[in-house]
Amino acid sequence: MNRIALSESIFTPASVAIAGVGDTNSGRQYLDSLLSAGFQGRIYPLNPKGAEIAGFKVYRNMKDIPEAVDYVISCLPAPMVPQFIQDCSQNEAKVVALFTAGFSELGSEEGRQLEWRISALARANGIRIIGPNCMGVYCPKVGLSFVHDFPKENGSVALVCQSGGNAIYFVRVAAERGVRFSKVVSYGNGCDIDESDLFDYLAQDDETKMVAAYIEGVKDGERFRQALSHLAARKPVIALKAGCTQAGARTATCHTGSLSGSSTVWNSLLQQAGAIQVQTLDEMIDMVVTFLFMPLPRGRGVAMVGFGGGASVMATDSCSGHGFTVPPVPQTIGDKFHSLLRSQAGLILSNPIELNMPPQISYAATKALITYDAIDLLLANCVFGQHPWPVYDDLADRLCDTVLQISAEVEKPIAVVLNSHVTNTQGQFLSLRRRYCEAGLPVYYSVASASQSINRLMQHHERQAFASMYDSRSTSVE
Amino acid sequence: MNRIALSESIFTPASVAIAGVGDTNSGRQYLDSLLSAGFQGRIYPLNPKGAEIAGFKVYRNMKDIPEAVDYVISCLPAPMVPQFIQDCSQNEAKVVALFTAGFSELGSEEGRQLEWRISALARANGIRIIGPNCMGVYCPKVGLSFVHDFPKENGSVALVCQSGGNAIYFVRVAAERGVRFSKVVSYGNGCDIDESDLFDYLAQDDETKMVAAYIEGVKDGERFRQALSHLAARKPVIALKAGCTQAGARTATCHTGSLSGSSTVWNSLLQQAGAIQVQTLDEMIDMVVTFLFMPLPRGRGVAMVGFGGGASVMATDSCSGHGFTVPPVPQTIGDKFHSLLRSQAGLILSNPIELNMPPQISYAATKALITYDAIDLLLANCVFGQHPWPVYDDLADRLCDTVLQISAEVEKPIAVVLNSHVTNTQGQFLSLRRRYCEAGLPVYYSVASASQSINRLMQHHERQAFASMYDSRSTSVE
Repeated sequence: MNRIALSESIFTPASVAIAGVGDTNSGRQYLDSLLSAGFQGRIYPLNPKGAEIAGFKVYRNMKDIPEAVDYVISCLPAPMVPQFIQDCSQNEAKVVALFTAGFSELGSEEGRQLEWRISALARANGIRIIGPNCMGVYCPKVGLSFVHDFPKENGSVALVCQSGGNAIYFVRVAAERGVRFSKVVSYGNGCDIDESDLFDYLAQDDETKMVAAYIEGVKDGERFRQALSHLAARKPVIALKAGCTQAGARTATCHTGSLSGSSTVWNSLLQQAGAIQVQTLDEMIDMVVTFLFMPLPRGRGVAMVGFGGGASVMATDSCSGHGFTVPPVPQTIGDKFHSLLRSQAGLILSNPIELNMPPQISYAATKALITYDAIDLLLANCVFGQHPWPVYDDLADRLCDTVLQISAEVEKPIAVVLNSHVTNTQGQFLSLRRRYCEAGLPVYYSVASASQSINRLMQHHERQAFASMYDSRSTSVE
Repeated sequence: MNRIALSESIFTPASVAIAGVGDTNSGRQYLDSLLSAGFQGRIYPLNPKGAEIAGFKVYRNMKDIPEAVDYVISCLPAPMVPQFIQDCSQNEAKVVALFTAGFSELGSEEGRQLEWRISALARANGIRIIGPNCMGVYCPKVGLSFVHDFPKENGSVALVCQSGGNAIYFVRVAAERGVRFSKVVSYGNGCDIDESDLFDYLAQDDETKMVAAYIEGVKDGERFRQALSHLAARKPVIALKAGCTQAGARTATCHTGSLSGSSTVWNSLLQQAGAIQVQTLDEMIDMVVTFLFMPLPRGRGVAMVGFGGGASVMATDSCSGHGFTVPPVPQTIGDKFHSLLRSQAGLILSNPIELNMPPQISYAATKALITYDAIDLLLANCVFGQHPWPVYDDLADRLCDTVLQISAEVEKPIAVVLNSHVTNTQGQFLSLRRRYCEAGLPVYYSVASASQSINRLMQHHERQAFASMYDSRSTSVE
């Protein structure tokens, strides 16, 4: 099959038509989402009844729209789609995003045939299809969105996501930790534009610095391998392959009509292609946060500050379990801690160090610890709910003061863990998360996820260094 | 060493003295905590200056208190503790809980000697010590508490915890999911009363139905093994051994002066003794929730209801990964789903089933699914933040309506997953968590933690069944 490269009109359309806009239905939700997102182009709602909606003229048919539309959203019932594709062809529309479901994911011969028919029709008419059974494209640069509350600011992360719900969750949850997006595509059954097309596009997209991908199944394994390898050689790719168990695969077939393949095959495929494999959306968000906000540590020596003795013991176990060291401080620094804190019993004064102490002393102790040679990164571990009495309520704020001051002065990378399982500290958690994110620091929700993610970052760079060494050697041999 | 069994006065004291009560210091916080918890006995604050505090007469010395005190809290500096133990002896006090730190956890010879000295003094005078370097006892039945905001209601879970901060976190976070406690002990360095003493006590305590234990290290391994085996043969024991890595062990030594031992030894010790081993406090809370609220499923067939296609695929993977099956529905039930929902495309209508549908239909579909023979338990999977538009905002509430209605009618066990990583759904999350907890259902925060916990519950029962079979066989052979 002769594949056409994706054009910019998919991501930065000058015009959007929405088929099936009523008073409260999904078409109307798409219209409201575009308005909330501040879409900068022209909007054409469609409904056979005509009239007006939300101040927009409603067109009865694609043929009546006075320009060739870049991006068309269909909320029509599945059986109406073949005719609609032909109407779009008459309009010379470029892309149709099919929110419409009811195709191969039904598992019926009828559904498969209908999907095959619309993709053939689109190909014959030079139209590209996103979907069916998907949410479509979010591109904040031009205000293209399928949801009302996504960030309006542009960013450097692309998301390629077979599931609409997962795309929505990913954007919302990642946005809370400072992640912003270049392009997000929910592509559902992927009857025309698929992950491989999107990988090819994103490999050459200067606005995209890394790609996260949620995949249930692919139709052309070899093409997928090539597209992924090509992309991963240029940008970090974080990939989640769902439907890896037999039951999960069956569910994936019901969801997006995907054939999933065995997890063994997928694990080695993703690894060989150079992608970073994760198991959950939250791990995928952790990795995006890490690539965005965590400078590469030059080694594996962790300094840890926080509070709670038991929390410190478990945090140390967790770091060690992910390949980091938590080096004990030498006598000189230990003496410094004890001279700073003559009268404080009940605190761990080594590495980790518990910062239940006056601000100037917290600062001096942390500075002494992070500037120690054996230390490559600082982990600030803030577990809410550990303290017995209200007098300690501002400890987390004071830890933040100390960490941000150190962050402004010291080159070594800093990661922050905010653990907020206790509901009544939610307000403080939100305010601290905002402060840390605004300072550009990576925020995690557990020491385990922080150390796992930073370990993956370092392994990724080690693999790349090895691969480039190998490349330059084979070049020099040739 | 001749060990004395713990007396009730540790947990249900009729009188409490607090040494070192000032205007705002830790002694005062202990006093306030007792008042907030509604302590039912007599309270004696101590301070060499005398006078009054919070309406209580302040005593200058233990000798002046007009009765033998059951439970004494010390917030004095470490060097004053030996003399204080002698004062307590004159009062004929029974137990001293030493919040006071500055003993073996310092790592100095001086600290070790001081700890040895106070434990010898206590033993010579018939006084039991909790700690040093600990928070002490929480026993809601009599309003004994070291924190102002623990639940006032009594429960059936005991927690034995070497770390004060972890004990506080555990109680607060578990309480939010409906867990209530019989006895909680933070025992720090454990120079006298240790985990083994507590296990012996809890094994025969009728108010305690299960025991959670956080341990950094033990001093007498053989006695620990015996006490744990004895306890675990009577009640479920969920154990977290911290300080399992080299760096974690060093941190544990700084925290509670514990010698940790290798993780291999600990893993086999805990398993052979019949404890359920977990790696994090959150896993420990998951297991307590499971033992409290999850009836034992008779098999491993899971029915899953929820919303979000991608979320359903990943949830299915997660269940399968923990040894459950998610059986496809037979033709008859599938036909029923499709006849109920003729016009709904874009939803998974099998098992899992997506319940984006009118309430009566959700109910009928869930009922058809859970009553199917191959189903042993229902998992309601509620992921917030997956939905694009405000029109879906009440889906999670409607899912709750359906699940609670089914729960009232059907015998099969039900587990609930509430995933709330999206901050602006926090209010809805809290209200739904309350509704599910009030209905007595186990609430988890991810499908992975739910399926891991229920798997551990089932494995625990399988092991017990095997052990009792083996026991009865060896008896019959003899």
